[in-house]
Amino acid sequence: MKALDRARRLFKELVDISADPPGVTRASFGPIEDAAHSMIRREATAIGLEQRVDAIGNLYVTLPGRDRSAPVLMTGSHLDSVPHGGNFDGAAGVLAGLVMLERLRAGPRPICDVTLMAIRAEEMIWFPEHYLGSRAAFGLLPPDTPDRLRRSDTERTLADHMEETGFEPQSIREGKPQLDPARIMAFVEVHIEQGPVLVEANLPVGVVTGIRGNIRHRFARIEGETTHAGGVPRRNRRDAVMAGAELVRTLEEWWLEAEAAGKDMVLTIGEFSTDSRRHGITKVPGLVNFTLDVRSQDDALLNRFEAFLNIEAASISARRGVQIDLGPHTRAAAAPMSKDVQSGLTAAAQDCGIHFMQLPSGGGHDCATFAGLGIPSGMLFIRNRNGSHNPNEHMEFDDFALACEVLTSWVATSARAQ
Amino acid sequence: MKALDRARRLFKELVDISADPPGVTRASFGPIEDAAHSMIRREATAIGLEQRVDAIGNLYVTLPGRDRSAPVLMTGSHLDSVPHGGNFDGAAGVLAGLVMLERLRAGPRPICDVTLMAIRAEEMIWFPEHYLGSRAAFGLLPPDTPDRLRRSDTERTLADHMEETGFEPQSIREGKPQLDPARIMAFVEVHIEQGPVLVEANLPVGVVTGIRGNIRHRFARIEGETTHAGGVPRRNRRDAVMAGAELVRTLEEWWLEAEAAGKDMVLTIGEFSTDSRRHGITKVPGLVNFTLDVRSQDDALLNRFEAFLNIEAASISARRGVQIDLGPHTRAAAAPMSKDVQSGLTAAAQDCGIHFMQLPSGGGHDCATFAGLGIPSGMLFIRNRNGSHNPNEHMEFDDFALACEVLTSWVATSARAQ
Repeated sequence: MKALDRARRLFKELVDISADPPGVTRASFGPIEDAAHSMIRREATAIGLEQRVDAIGNLYVTLPGRDRSAPVLMTGSHLDSVPHGGNFDGAAGVLAGLVMLERLRAGPRPICDVTLMAIRAEEMIWFPEHYLGSRAAFGLLPPDTPDRLRRSDTERTLADHMEETGFEPQSIREGKPQLDPARIMAFVEVHIEQGPVLVEANLPVGVVTGIRGNIRHRFARIEGETTHAGGVPRRNRRDAVMAGAELVRTLEEWWLEAEAAGKDMVLTIGEFSTDSRRHGITKVPGLVNFTLDVRSQDDALLNRFEAFLNIEAASISARRGVQIDLGPHTRAAAAPMSKDVQSGLTAAAQDCGIHFMQLPSGGGHDCATFAGLGIPSGMLFIRNRNGSHNPNEHMEFDDFALACEVLTSWVATSARAQ
Repeated sequence: MKALDRARRLFKELVDISADPPGVTRASFGPIEDAAHSMIRREATAIGLEQRVDAIGNLYVTLPGRDRSAPVLMTGSHLDSVPHGGNFDGAAGVLAGLVMLERLRAGPRPICDVTLMAIRAEEMIWFPEHYLGSRAAFGLLPPDTPDRLRRSDTERTLADHMEETGFEPQSIREGKPQLDPARIMAFVEVHIEQGPVLVEANLPVGVVTGIRGNIRHRFARIEGETTHAGGVPRRNRRDAVMAGAELVRTLEEWWLEAEAAGKDMVLTIGEFSTDSRRHGITKVPGLVNFTLDVRSQDDALLNRFEAFLNIEAASISARRGVQIDLGPHTRAAAAPMSKDVQSGLTAAAQDCGIHFMQLPSGGGHDCATFAGLGIPSGMLFIRNRNGSHNPNEHMEFDDFALACEVLTSWVATSARAQ
């Protein structure tokens, strides 16, 4: 139980250094994220593990294997958090890796290196770029990234923040990789679930089948005409809310049909607002701004949805005399998890006698970076109440302990270290 | 043409004293509304008409009839405007009355008094009470009105503003009538149309069939649950926007059916907004605030709509796990126009060889106060482009001149003054 006691103590220490009521705040490339990395380095030293920090600030904690030149087994997650978030999003995966390494170190030496990666800057709310730390580690970011991205709270550049923390924006500008995909045998990320599926199923852990891709329209709008709510007959109205309601209903019906056909998909119109400077109870609304986020493990389904969305927007615009402008969209490809890694995690859970289920990941995770490079990748979800990105996020430590068991068993088997 | 020349000059003078680019502003019980009343008093003196100002500040300009004790023929409208509104909303009706009186004065004396009423405080944006000036004139306001209502711009009470302008809030507190309905033979209000119906029909004037009643929900809301847009499956969502879209669509379908059945109705969801403090592109929306305004000349239809609205709100709430709270509602009864007055105005237009149509009034007008008291009442609409309550409101002076002809002919006939 020594390794778990350490994890329990470290979760507590993390709350202490990052408390920002309600919840915790660990900004990407800020002093609190930094303190969390220092904490992991200190513990790795205490356990007797190797460590390295790359030019980006990512930390690698390694238990050396018998063949140091063989491809490495990796696990990891991030240590930053959203503002006033929970303590476990990201950190649970890092501490699970530490527990696993401490346990493995007590047994026979593994055939290959086993590395825990504590990743920087995963939460997009700070810098508007997916998987910043892991993509930088593989040299995947555009060269202008350090000078273009600004942190949402300080409005200072990523370069400023990296330099202040002692790291090298120049390595991103030059696209210099810190990691070689060919040197990674497999990658597994342990993470709390961000939805209620495991709670509802009453299961402590889940094996992730894939990370959903998404299409996002952040600046969609419907322009109609602001007119008098009493004097203007229906045929003369260009009502942005009525048009928007039809669009939302039609898209929801498409979703229901996709679900009925067994497809994976979620659709969210997170923002939908008339214009507070012009709207009023006695005015026909002339403007609606809205957002759209659609996710699926199936990229082809996302393509079909986007085509349908465009056709419907044009059709409603024409019929109702409004202009539905969907604006620019961003796209993240779906990242299916490796079948082999899924089988391995499944077998590990069964070996440990732990009940589990398979489920998709709705949120994005650094694991998608590894999967996108063709590295056999997988994720293990831990049951978590009240969602994530909020202070009420709640993981039971017992569930965390079961996830550590599964991870350790999978690594031990994969590294043939029994 | 003398009377029309005067009107043309007075429209110009009104713009000059109330210009507040874009458009004009004449606040209820403010110095500009007051200046407009003074302007009408000055002109009435010049024409040689009697005048009286009541305790509320309403102005009565009278051409004496042969029998001063006989019930009076009345016309009138208001002189205030919305902020940055147009010059004609209200003022056109007052100046049409002045043109009519000047013309009548040149002919044989009418059998009864003919009175133009320049009404105070019709625009609800200043004080949140329907038809404030006309209802005060009949002693219809609750006694606490002068001390309860505050003007939206100054936040000072109606009593303060009335006293500052030299009038008597005490007369409202005591419910003291300034006018006796039994002494009014009929009332006609000339007003610009607030919709595009006459423009579309290419007709200069319209005879109003009735003033629509309305039901308004100003503080309706849908409470769901704010959750993660990726991690939460559809069955676990309590999505306020999806619920709202279904409600809006269902109500619109009811409207379409009512229209198909030949019923008079308009429905407006003027405000519909997710909560800017909590919403986001990657969050299932947990809150929507919306407004609802439904109008009809048919009070029974409004009752049926309200019943349907309540049933649908409850049904959607139950099915989607949200709470649709419609909040308090206000209600204004429909005011059908007198058949006799409609016939009289129709005959007058035909006598003058002026093309016209019949149409409902979607907006409320002081005329509803008179109709509600059982006074035979009617309205004459003047063609107007670009709606009202905005600086682009546009009435052609030639159309105004035709409305003056119809009004004069109706009064002359009604007062048997030929």
